[in-house]
Amino acid sequence: MRVTVLGAGLVGGPMALDLVGGEGFEVTVADIDGAALAALARRAPALSTEEQDLSDPEAVAALARDADLVINAVPGFMGYATLEALIRAGRDVVDIAFCEQDFFGLDELAKERGVVAVVDCGVAPGMSNLLSGHADHQLDETDSVLIYVGGLPEQRRWPWEYKAVFSPIDVIAEYTRPARYVENGRLVVREALSDPELLDFDGIGTLQAFNTDGLRTLARTLDAPNMKEKTLRYPGHIDKIAVLRETGFFDETPVDVGGVEVRPIDLCARLLFPRWKLEDGEVDITVMRIVVEGLREGARTRFTYDLLDRYDETTGVHSMARTTGYTATSMVRLLAAGLYRTPGITPPEILGRHPDCVDFMLRDLAARGVVYRERVDLLD
Amino acid sequence: MRVTVLGAGLVGGPMALDLVGGEGFEVTVADIDGAALAALARRAPALSTEEQDLSDPEAVAALARDADLVINAVPGFMGYATLEALIRAGRDVVDIAFCEQDFFGLDELAKERGVVAVVDCGVAPGMSNLLSGHADHQLDETDSVLIYVGGLPEQRRWPWEYKAVFSPIDVIAEYTRPARYVENGRLVVREALSDPELLDFDGIGTLQAFNTDGLRTLARTLDAPNMKEKTLRYPGHIDKIAVLRETGFFDETPVDVGGVEVRPIDLCARLLFPRWKLEDGEVDITVMRIVVEGLREGARTRFTYDLLDRYDETTGVHSMARTTGYTATSMVRLLAAGLYRTPGITPPEILGRHPDCVDFMLRDLAARGVVYRERVDLLD
Repeated sequence: MRVTVLGAGLVGGPMALDLVGGEGFEVTVADIDGAALAALARRAPALSTEEQDLSDPEAVAALARDADLVINAVPGFMGYATLEALIRAGRDVVDIAFCEQDFFGLDELAKERGVVAVVDCGVAPGMSNLLSGHADHQLDETDSVLIYVGGLPEQRRWPWEYKAVFSPIDVIAEYTRPARYVENGRLVVREALSDPELLDFDGIGTLQAFNTDGLRTLARTLDAPNMKEKTLRYPGHIDKIAVLRETGFFDETPVDVGGVEVRPIDLCARLLFPRWKLEDGEVDITVMRIVVEGLREGARTRFTYDLLDRYDETTGVHSMARTTGYTATSMVRLLAAGLYRTPGITPPEILGRHPDCVDFMLRDLAARGVVYRERVDLLD
Repeated sequence: MRVTVLGAGLVGGPMALDLVGGEGFEVTVADIDGAALAALARRAPALSTEEQDLSDPEAVAALARDADLVINAVPGFMGYATLEALIRAGRDVVDIAFCEQDFFGLDELAKERGVVAVVDCGVAPGMSNLLSGHADHQLDETDSVLIYVGGLPEQRRWPWEYKAVFSPIDVIAEYTRPARYVENGRLVVREALSDPELLDFDGIGTLQAFNTDGLRTLARTLDAPNMKEKTLRYPGHIDKIAVLRETGFFDETPVDVGGVEVRPIDLCARLLFPRWKLEDGEVDITVMRIVVEGLREGARTRFTYDLLDRYDETTGVHSMARTTGYTATSMVRLLAAGLYRTPGITPPEILGRHPDCVDFMLRDLAARGVVYRERVDLLD
């Protein structure tokens, strides 16, 4: 099977390397960044590279024509247009561009073209959806879905105690976009960073969870009266973030500074970039806990899934890239194995209804050291 | 006596109004801001106004020629040049421009011209110097001088709990300039914001003190092995400031933001300006505590001076303007009364050696409601 990875960044690269090692895959990776492509090609001579401007739908369509399946790992702001170009080209897609638009606008088109498009296929969104859907499917009635997730540096350095493979501007978006969640059957909108709570995690210690707008497709696909996603950081991080936000450093309206117009958020992101950048070799961790409660055969039951992943010192692949990227590559293998063939836009919670798919994903990820621990408790 | 006030700002205005009410003074106030002058003239028709660019030494010299004494209340960056122009013009000066340069470079010139120039004549520097000098003069041997001072809003509003009549850029300078103090007889340089300590003040509660570079002339004029000035804020303020500083928001080196060059501190000051601005009618307070210890006739003795001043609701004059500006106007009256006539650059601690001068200042300030409480303790 010919697989093309669009994007050779910090997640795209490890995905290409993971796939090129597997049997039966011819892998191409495309990006505008020739240096990133060359570095990948040196590590895996079997990998094909294509230097292309992926913001050009024509270039995307041309790349799609030479592939059986495409992983869309372009930056979020380009995500929707790229996904649409891939679907138009009639190629199956695994998408981790995490665009902000509503994917389901492309559902009809995907069905028309017979395209299987698994979207939001990272860790969260991604495995959080799959496992929430899996638990929901096992319950006769689901009361609540609670997802806690965060990517963190192992070493905490004052003041931010935070590092990411993403641009600060994307991280800040999580801190400013109103958080939507479902409470008592109604959609509730709360300020981002609200409802802080402290939680203990084995192997890490105490983290602070707060509201962010992370439910995405779950808010419409899952029938549960209470659903919430919260982001995890080391305690204190969001207090500092709230000060920046309140003071206007995240504002997108330009202000006049000595005769030039500047968007405060652009300067802020510029200053935070070197301070939040997860460096090569810097150890990061990914923490996720999913708690789904409801009734099963009349008994109140709680499903808990815990992930604690860590930087891989052997391969030098960051945990954020492992947990996000390997979910997408596992999904590629799942599709290649013919376990799911339904055309249309499919968020991972739909695959959560298929025990063989869940089992495949968990085993395939575990083979890469990304291990989800399931626990089932009877609450009565 | 003809007195001219250079600067019609939030301190200059109240000074002009204070002086114009006194017997024997013809008062002129000069500023580039015609609207500020007009507002003052409406409140006190006896006041003369001069719309002038005070950054022009010629304009300053011309204003000086029509005065017997000048109060220099221009912004700090213009302070030294203005003081020099006034001394060259041969006019006595009371200076609250608080420039960063070394005043004593003008001492010879002032002596040549027979000019009495009392510098740093606000609250701190100013009364802090006068009272430190006063206590030092009463001791046979001074061990330590400790000055705590802060201007604060009465109402604490998250996140900064701070308001000022000064530009944020001048306040930030206090948070970045290394703090010099004297310890065990040696000049010590410490990072600004260092050595936080919590102190209780009657009528206010707990405040946090930290190192700032406030000793100025005291470091050279007073013979004490331990001298330190610390700034007071509500607890928590400096933790947030330290985050901004560490992240680079106070940097003065321009950075490229989307093709334009911006100094981070300029944007930061721009965003903080409306948030730190002490509004008309907003109640502010000034807190100062001066503790001087040493030996008097063989007994360990401690002098403590406490100031707690508050916004004047009758006149609408902020406490920061009262405690700073009325020190300068009291000094004008002291000089007019002929209590001090020595030509040269005189910081207030020198006048602290003259009990009649100290007595005059304390009584004149008390008449305006600015009351310093002295307490003497024997420590053995």
